[in-house]
Amino acid sequence: MNDLIMLGHGGGGRLTTDLVHNLFLKNFQNSHLEPLNDSALLTIDRKNLSFTTDSYVVSPIFFPGGDIGSLAVHGTVNDLAMSGARPLYLSAAYIIEEGFSLKELEKIVISMATTARSAGIEIVTGDTKVVPKGMADGLYINTAGIGVHEYGPPLEPQRIKKGDAILINGTIGDHGAAVITAREAGFSESRITSDAAALNHLVEKMQKSSIKLHCLRDATRGGMGGILAELAKQAHSYLDIEEKSIPVREEVRGFCEIYGMEPLFLANEGKMVIFCALDDAEKALQILHSDPLGENAAIIGRVTEVDQETGRVIMNTLIGGERIIDQPTGDLVPRIC
Amino acid sequence: MNDLIMLGHGGGGRLTTDLVHNLFLKNFQNSHLEPLNDSALLTIDRKNLSFTTDSYVVSPIFFPGGDIGSLAVHGTVNDLAMSGARPLYLSAAYIIEEGFSLKELEKIVISMATTARSAGIEIVTGDTKVVPKGMADGLYINTAGIGVHEYGPPLEPQRIKKGDAILINGTIGDHGAAVITAREAGFSESRITSDAAALNHLVEKMQKSSIKLHCLRDATRGGMGGILAELAKQAHSYLDIEEKSIPVREEVRGFCEIYGMEPLFLANEGKMVIFCALDDAEKALQILHSDPLGENAAIIGRVTEVDQETGRVIMNTLIGGERIIDQPTGDLVPRIC
Repeated sequence: MNDLIMLGHGGGGRLTTDLVHNLFLKNFQNSHLEPLNDSALLTIDRKNLSFTTDSYVVSPIFFPGGDIGSLAVHGTVNDLAMSGARPLYLSAAYIIEEGFSLKELEKIVISMATTARSAGIEIVTGDTKVVPKGMADGLYINTAGIGVHEYGPPLEPQRIKKGDAILINGTIGDHGAAVITAREAGFSESRITSDAAALNHLVEKMQKSSIKLHCLRDATRGGMGGILAELAKQAHSYLDIEEKSIPVREEVRGFCEIYGMEPLFLANEGKMVIFCALDDAEKALQILHSDPLGENAAIIGRVTEVDQETGRVIMNTLIGGERIIDQPTGDLVPRIC
Repeated sequence: MNDLIMLGHGGGGRLTTDLVHNLFLKNFQNSHLEPLNDSALLTIDRKNLSFTTDSYVVSPIFFPGGDIGSLAVHGTVNDLAMSGARPLYLSAAYIIEEGFSLKELEKIVISMATTARSAGIEIVTGDTKVVPKGMADGLYINTAGIGVHEYGPPLEPQRIKKGDAILINGTIGDHGAAVITAREAGFSESRITSDAAALNHLVEKMQKSSIKLHCLRDATRGGMGGILAELAKQAHSYLDIEEKSIPVREEVRGFCEIYGMEPLFLANEGKMVIFCALDDAEKALQILHSDPLGENAAIIGRVTEVDQETGRVIMNTLIGGERIIDQPTGDLVPRIC
């Protein structure tokens, strides 16, 4: 099995990290790719730009709180915003299975247009491919995006400092739970709604304040737990988080009990972890609370060490224990985005 | 059938044009998208950039003269070069079918890396998704690209002038014939090699000369015939071309006789039509002939009228007749790129 691609290679966990290092990074090596952030930092004519891409293969295509089209806009907008860039332009490329409904395609395109407008970006170029029936699962969308840096240096893991506060802008696991429920039980059965949202305006509010922001990362594949473990490694830092401070909806907790999953590793599409100077944590929280996308925001932990050989995330559990949070190996839930 | 996506919607012919106008342009409307060139022209901080995207779904994945990886680099590099931009950065996003061979993936990634290096661009960001077995056909790749304009205003159909010469940089139909032969008869049976190549260095040679270049377009899906018909419409021009001047390889001619196809509508991946001032046509031809990618270049026609209500391509045939060349309706050959 070792020489075949497994679902886990696309899951955003350790198998993905290995593939990226041993295959892509090794062969494509260049200074823009090496930091392995969600977007590449480019300098054109002394202007700092971010450039990113993501393909979306979510199943089902329509789910409570969004669809593959809105997701394809939100996801790429967020990847740009996380680097501190203002998202400006998107591309949209469609791989459509022969026999797909034109009406559904139109619904998705309208959803992308509406989402793009409210995020303040333009979809400026595109491509359409059709593959024979049985060669795709309805529709896959790729979006690539360009953003421009207007608020100082790019945000990146390397800027995380000892003592930094760690925040999350709201409840975790909503997207994963919504998509899985829609897939397993059907759209109409689901009482959980995806949190999919464009975070760029909320990020801009923080950037325009005097807060010393150091790093942002959207907690998509791998969930908040997986993302923190990855960041800890990239930043060679020890992160301590408090389980009791992590906001989780009752419905998501119930869902996790039924399916034997953990909110910590469920995907989000409108949540980010925020690293800022400890002194600014309360102010950051105020800004977050004043926005609908941050109303359930919380301070969940802090950075206890930096410059370590390797990274580590420790969670102080509800029952008073300590638990190491690591990247999941493979794919807990395939086709979540 | 009208409300379902057909293979022809992805064929680059009239069905694709209709879909783009009635769905994407209508909903995404903005000034960058409207010209419907292969790349969008963006201005960031008074710097002109081109931005483009394409997904590659070619079958088979390996064919004489290339593979899906080299194609994904060549195709997007060429889209940028056609606008007059110097290609700088690429993204690469993979949708991989569960069970795909890691060894084949590595071969393709190495091919992309080699191709990118020789085209002088960097692959700076990427994404990997894995879909369950049966939900894709091995591997699909999306590349998006950014280029910068350094040689005056962008090249576009609107700059085509009455009297302009029309050139092609070599034999047509090679890519289409190579892929179809590999698909139908098997890789080893094929004596025809794809022309897939990065055209940016050749374009740069012309830009650095004193030639008054007006428009370039790579003759991919729809072939040279389809591309000329599309350009004639976009430029509201009448184009006259001479069948006897169009270079076609003997093997491709033979292939077309067997399969009942026309070289004019077969895809190319290293061919472009070139519109330049008539006085410069001979000089352009010299430059093309001095380069391996232009050694079979020819002047094939000229622009007889502009500012017409609609466009038109007339071909003076070998037997002395006149034939109107129109965009093919749908997909003559699916999954050619």
